[in-house]
Amino acid sequence: DMAVRHYTLDFNLSTAVDPASTVSGLLSIFHEQELTETIHDTDGHGYLATFVGKNVTPSLLNALENKLKVLLNGNITRIKKLPALLRGAKVDRYWPTADGRLIEYDIDKVVYEEDSEYQNIKILHSQQYGNILVLDGDVNLAESDSAYTQAITGSGKENYAGKEVLILGGGDGGILAELVKQKPKMITMKVIDGCKKYMRKTCGDILDNLKGDCYQILIQDCVPLLKKYVQEGRTFDYVINDLTAIPISTSPEEDSTWEFLRLILDLSIKVLHPSGKYFTQGNSANLTEALNLFEERLGRLSCPVDFRKEVVCVPSYLEQWVFYTAWKK
Amino acid sequence: DMAVRHYTLDFNLSTAVDPASTVSGLLSIFHEQELTETIHDTDGHGYLATFVGKNVTPSLLNALENKLKVLLNGNITRIKKLPALLRGAKVDRYWPTADGRLIEYDIDKVVYEEDSEYQNIKILHSQQYGNILVLDGDVNLAESDSAYTQAITGSGKENYAGKEVLILGGGDGGILAELVKQKPKMITMKVIDGCKKYMRKTCGDILDNLKGDCYQILIQDCVPLLKKYVQEGRTFDYVINDLTAIPISTSPEEDSTWEFLRLILDLSIKVLHPSGKYFTQGNSANLTEALNLFEERLGRLSCPVDFRKEVVCVPSYLEQWVFYTAWKK
Repeated sequence: DMAVRHYTLDFNLSTAVDPASTVSGLLSIFHEQELTETIHDTDGHGYLATFVGKNVTPSLLNALENKLKVLLNGNITRIKKLPALLRGAKVDRYWPTADGRLIEYDIDKVVYEEDSEYQNIKILHSQQYGNILVLDGDVNLAESDSAYTQAITGSGKENYAGKEVLILGGGDGGILAELVKQKPKMITMKVIDGCKKYMRKTCGDILDNLKGDCYQILIQDCVPLLKKYVQEGRTFDYVINDLTAIPISTSPEEDSTWEFLRLILDLSIKVLHPSGKYFTQGNSANLTEALNLFEERLGRLSCPVDFRKEVVCVPSYLEQWVFYTAWKK
Repeated sequence: DMAVRHYTLDFNLSTAVDPASTVSGLLSIFHEQELTETIHDTDGHGYLATFVGKNVTPSLLNALENKLKVLLNGNITRIKKLPALLRGAKVDRYWPTADGRLIEYDIDKVVYEEDSEYQNIKILHSQQYGNILVLDGDVNLAESDSAYTQAITGSGKENYAGKEVLILGGGDGGILAELVKQKPKMITMKVIDGCKKYMRKTCGDILDNLKGDCYQILIQDCVPLLKKYVQEGRTFDYVINDLTAIPISTSPEEDSTWEFLRLILDLSIKVLHPSGKYFTQGNSANLTEALNLFEERLGRLSCPVDFRKEVVCVPSYLEQWVFYTAWKK
C-alpha cells in the first residue's frame, strides 16, 4: 500500500520568539529527517506544522517534538500532536458523517462493489462493526447496527403478531428478519443483492427466498405500488419507511429528494389503518434545520398526523440519529 | 477564529497522462484560486492534492473539481473529495479513538478546565452528546452515555437493593446516581469537582452531599482503603472498578498502569463476597492484544475467577467498547 500519512503538530509560541527565525529553524529540523512539510502561521493564533515522510514512527515523532522544544527554548505555550491522516490508501477509510465531520473508520477490506440501476453499492469490512453497507457513499447499516432495526420498528414496544406490515426499502433484510420472528403477515420490497451474501448477520437467511409463510418480497418500485394500494383501499397496521434519510439540504425547491419524501409520506399515511403507525428514520440529531423542515411538513399533510421522535445511537453511524413515529389524529 | 481548513482531493489518472505536465497544470489551477497546495504522487497509486485557502466555499470546491476534469481531459479514473481537516481552531475538535483513529467531534465550547493533583480535567460541550468529560486527553464520559453506566453496573440484570457496593473511581457520579435509586448501602470515592456543576445530566444532585441515606463519598486514594478492607476482612456484594481502562500499551514491563491495574484487580477480588460480582470496563473492541493480555491476567489471579465480556456502544466513544464481569470460582 502506497498510502501517505499526514502528521500535524499544532502549537503556540510565546510572543518573545521571532517568527521568521522560528519557521526557518523548524524547516531545517524537518529536512534533517527527510520530511516534506508545510508550516502555517495562523495569524497569531499559533503554528501548524504538517509533514509527510516514509518512515515516521512514534519514536521519530517524539524526537521531533523534543527537538522543537529545544529549538524554541521553552517558548512553546501549547503543543498537540494531532492524529495522522492517511491519504491515498487502497481501501478508503474516511466517510464523513451526515453533519460533515471527518471520521476515520477501521475499514480493512472492500467485500463487494456494484453499480446497480439505482445506486452505487459497497459492502466494506470493519473489525468492530462487521460488514458495512454503503449506498452512494453514505454509511447505511452495519452488522453491528441492530439498534437501527430496533428503533425503526418501534423500540420493542409493538406487537406485530398477525399484523399487516408494509416495509418500504429495507433492502438489507434487517427489518424483515427481525419482524418475521413475530409472525405478522408482511410485505417488503426491493432487495439489495449483495446483502443476501455479505450481510447475513443482519438478514440471516430471510433474503434467500422471495416468499415465506408470512412475508413476500416484491421487486418493484414503491410509488406505483403505494398508488395501487390507495386505489384498492388497502390499509396496513404498520408502514415502515426505510427508503431514505431526510435530505441534508434545506432547500426543498432545489432538491428533488424532498419532493420524493413528501410523496412517499403522503401515500404512506393514506394506506395506514386509522389505528396504524408509521415509522421512519430522520437524520443526524445535529441537522436541526433539516429535522425542523421535516417536522413542519409532517404537520401539514393532507391527512393530519401526530408524531414523536427518539434519539438513538446506531453504532456504525458515529453520530446520534433521530427516528420518527407518526399516527393519524 | 483563525483556524485553517485543509482540503484534499484524492484521485487516480489513466496511464495515458503525462505526470509532469499534470502536476504543473494542477499547480496553476490552485495558484489561480490563491490556494496554498501540496501535491503528492503516491508512487503510481494516485495523486493527493492537499490545499488551504482563506475563502474556500462548497461552490469553489466544485469549480475546482470541474477544472481538474477539464484539464485532465477525461483521464481521471477515480476522484474523491475528502472531508476537510480543521487545524489550529480555538476549540480543539480532534480526539483520537483508543485504537488511534482520527475523529472530529462536534465540540463547540470548553466548559471547564483544571489541572488537579492527579490529572488534566476538561469538560467540553458537544451539540449531540452534551457535556463531555475528558481526562488527560481521553474522552471519559458524556451526558449522552448512560449506556456506559448501564454496562458497568451489569446491564440492568442485577438487584442492588440492600447490597454492599464499592465503587472505585466513578468521579463523575454517574454510577452512584444510577444505583442509589435501588437503595443499596454504598460507598464511592474520589469525586471530580467540575462534574458536580457541569455533568448534572449524568450525576443529578448526588455529588452535592458527601453522605446520603445509602451512600458515602470518600475523598481518598483507593489502594490504602482496599488494603484496610482486606485487613479488616470486610467484603462487598459488588465491586465496580471505574478507575481506568486497560492500558493500550501491551508491554506491561514498561507501563506502570498494568501494575496498578493488577494491584487493584487483586485487592478488589480479595474484598469480593464469595457470591459477589466485579464489574469493570476493558477498552476498545479493536485492541485485541491488550484485551487478551488482560484476560490472561484475569486467569492467573491469586484468587481464581471466571469472567464474561460484553461489547457495548457508548455514544460519545465512537468505537465499540468491551466490559467485563468477574466472579470467584
